[in-house]
Amino acid sequence: MSSIRHTAPLSFPVSDNQLVIGGLPIARLAERIGRTPFYAYDRALISARIAQLRQALPDEIHLHYAIKANPMPAVVQHLAGLVDGFDVASGGELKTVLDTPMPPNQISFAGPAKSPAELRQAIAAGIVINLESERELLAAVQAGEALGIRPKVAVRVNPDFELKSAGMKMSGGPKQFGIDAERVPAVLAEMKHLDLEFIGFHIFSGAQNLRAEAISEAQEKTLELAMRLALEAPSPVRALNLGGGFGIPYFPGEQPLDLAAVGERLSELLPAARRALPDTELIIELGRFIVGEAGLYICRVVERKLSRGQVFLVTDGGLHHHLAASGNFGQIIRKNYPVLVANRVESGEEPETASVVGPLCTPLDLLADKMPLGHAREGDLIAVMQSGAYGLTASPTAFLGHLPAVEVLV
Amino acid sequence: MSSIRHTAPLSFPVSDNQLVIGGLPIARLAERIGRTPFYAYDRALISARIAQLRQALPDEIHLHYAIKANPMPAVVQHLAGLVDGFDVASGGELKTVLDTPMPPNQISFAGPAKSPAELRQAIAAGIVINLESERELLAAVQAGEALGIRPKVAVRVNPDFELKSAGMKMSGGPKQFGIDAERVPAVLAEMKHLDLEFIGFHIFSGAQNLRAEAISEAQEKTLELAMRLALEAPSPVRALNLGGGFGIPYFPGEQPLDLAAVGERLSELLPAARRALPDTELIIELGRFIVGEAGLYICRVVERKLSRGQVFLVTDGGLHHHLAASGNFGQIIRKNYPVLVANRVESGEEPETASVVGPLCTPLDLLADKMPLGHAREGDLIAVMQSGAYGLTASPTAFLGHLPAVEVLV
Repeated sequence: MSSIRHTAPLSFPVSDNQLVIGGLPIARLAERIGRTPFYAYDRALISARIAQLRQALPDEIHLHYAIKANPMPAVVQHLAGLVDGFDVASGGELKTVLDTPMPPNQISFAGPAKSPAELRQAIAAGIVINLESERELLAAVQAGEALGIRPKVAVRVNPDFELKSAGMKMSGGPKQFGIDAERVPAVLAEMKHLDLEFIGFHIFSGAQNLRAEAISEAQEKTLELAMRLALEAPSPVRALNLGGGFGIPYFPGEQPLDLAAVGERLSELLPAARRALPDTELIIELGRFIVGEAGLYICRVVERKLSRGQVFLVTDGGLHHHLAASGNFGQIIRKNYPVLVANRVESGEEPETASVVGPLCTPLDLLADKMPLGHAREGDLIAVMQSGAYGLTASPTAFLGHLPAVEVLV
Repeated sequence: MSSIRHTAPLSFPVSDNQLVIGGLPIARLAERIGRTPFYAYDRALISARIAQLRQALPDEIHLHYAIKANPMPAVVQHLAGLVDGFDVASGGELKTVLDTPMPPNQISFAGPAKSPAELRQAIAAGIVINLESERELLAAVQAGEALGIRPKVAVRVNPDFELKSAGMKMSGGPKQFGIDAERVPAVLAEMKHLDLEFIGFHIFSGAQNLRAEAISEAQEKTLELAMRLALEAPSPVRALNLGGGFGIPYFPGEQPLDLAAVGERLSELLPAARRALPDTELIIELGRFIVGEAGLYICRVVERKLSRGQVFLVTDGGLHHHLAASGNFGQIIRKNYPVLVANRVESGEEPETASVVGPLCTPLDLLADKMPLGHAREGDLIAVMQSGAYGLTASPTAFLGHLPAVEVLV
């Protein structure tokens, strides 16, 4: 058991020892939903996060939401009124955003291996295709000709810069994403002869970063690269997607990102960018940072089990709903998400060391490994915090044939 | 790039440089299915594996299939005629096996956190409930009383033995599974006063083991423990599930399990077991070992991409269909599954080093990392071998909104 604690402040209010979400104590919300497990996302917290971003970032920054972080249709509908654009990663995600009032020209589509059907959908919808390769450029032009519609395209660039900030691997090595920066001028030259609408660039250099200086350094290098490439563009750059990569704290010892510092540094970079790119919308694309802290996963304690001195809280929820919290999605060393007994938040009792496990017949099904928790009883509700992003859709929901989790936006 | 090669022999025949499955060359099967990606499972290979097990294991061993490894209904129907019983892990899996001709008393249900609804289903179906805890014993008895049906129960035991064989962690520590061995005599004593039908024991001590001596040691200790506990049983032990844990080779350098050695050692253990447990069916429960090598995952090369000297085969398949092959399901260090260009198996060309990636916007979406492969072109089919178990259902199929994979049994 680690002595390092989770340091993130609790986003949700507490009333009568219960987490409150969307104005409802968690036990009442569970009754309203009628069953556990469920994911609950807080509409007000999502709105507050957008307000926080608007305040910290320069006014002219356009905020986009990458719906892959949480594609629940109600969440996407809510965000349609709050952000300036959406980014999608598949034909399936495109359907979700086209069901909102977001104007198509504020929607972009990234991802390698776009299928011919997806390219046609994107062109017919009038959204921006972030080209991942030279092959995709030609495929998009061909699809546009077949449809009689000029495709809107941006070039996704695989950056050629190395970042010196420690702890983040965002170097310019070989990648499946984007066109290598050194190849981009030739591609831009070719575009001049093709029937398409050039929109700009998409340059993405990392994810889940908690260090403001690393993000600022990436933004600086990205702007420099974009200004260089803009000189070769077939027409003025109308949009530059700087990526995002703003992280949220998950694990013991992690501190929240200093958003104000990111905003200040970006303000300093803007005058030069404005001179070089006067007609360009500057976009920051965020997923996890917008929704991650606004959601929680709730499961119920089916059994409080003592095995050879260790307390197991056996719940009806597990890795089939929340793979990331089990440590099996991109983590090298398993660490605990912040987890608490949602209806005994401030019981006054000394915490006990317990493990939270699920119904699956595998030791991988572990939501909390020997961490300090309130004394939970059977019927209590366990909350896995920081679960608004890459939760349900990033999980193997069919594994072992259990019932699906419900999702609610409250 | 590792110089250690995958050592498993290819289970599938090759004809005209194409993998052949179910008698069909892979390109033709892809046309028959009409789209990629797909999983294909070979009916004949599954049957051959059962025959191999029957030959290697003593005649009196009952073979059970744990359907969590691959719950595709057609696979389960096929196995219903080949194995002696099924093991399920949820109410959902129970539905699948009850749709087969397997007699209910040859079906058992394991898993912590069984819900009241699942216990009632199991009792109504007349299957055997593997009790994971003392709470579950009481809940089963109550459900049986409510239904007016005596529940059939076996005790899942959390073993108290330590195994000396290296490389496997199968010790008798605290677990969410089963009842601690030292508590079992008291539970068996309590059962004498309860309205239930005692079936026997389920003792499971590890999974995915490639070392025959480790499996034999586990079987020996398991038999010893069962013989000891049988002395306390409320009635003769009718079934003893020895678990399974037979592994298949996935990664470079791994060698297939010596099944003959497991069978020989088990034969030596049987006379003592027969004396102590004369009326007991001895069950070996296998999942992965039965179906794992009989299946492959096929995706199509959408693009052959060169980025800074590295070859990427960008395919329409990825971790959303095959999480385990991406290295994100239980692996500590990512290793490559055996992967090959399924329509260029023996092209005669010198292999090239290439990475196989998918359509997802994440570097985690990696099916093969810089491994030697035939020279693939766009439109070619990539096969991930050893994919018959813990494939599709263990994957986050909704991740990023791509189309689902098809499953076929041929």
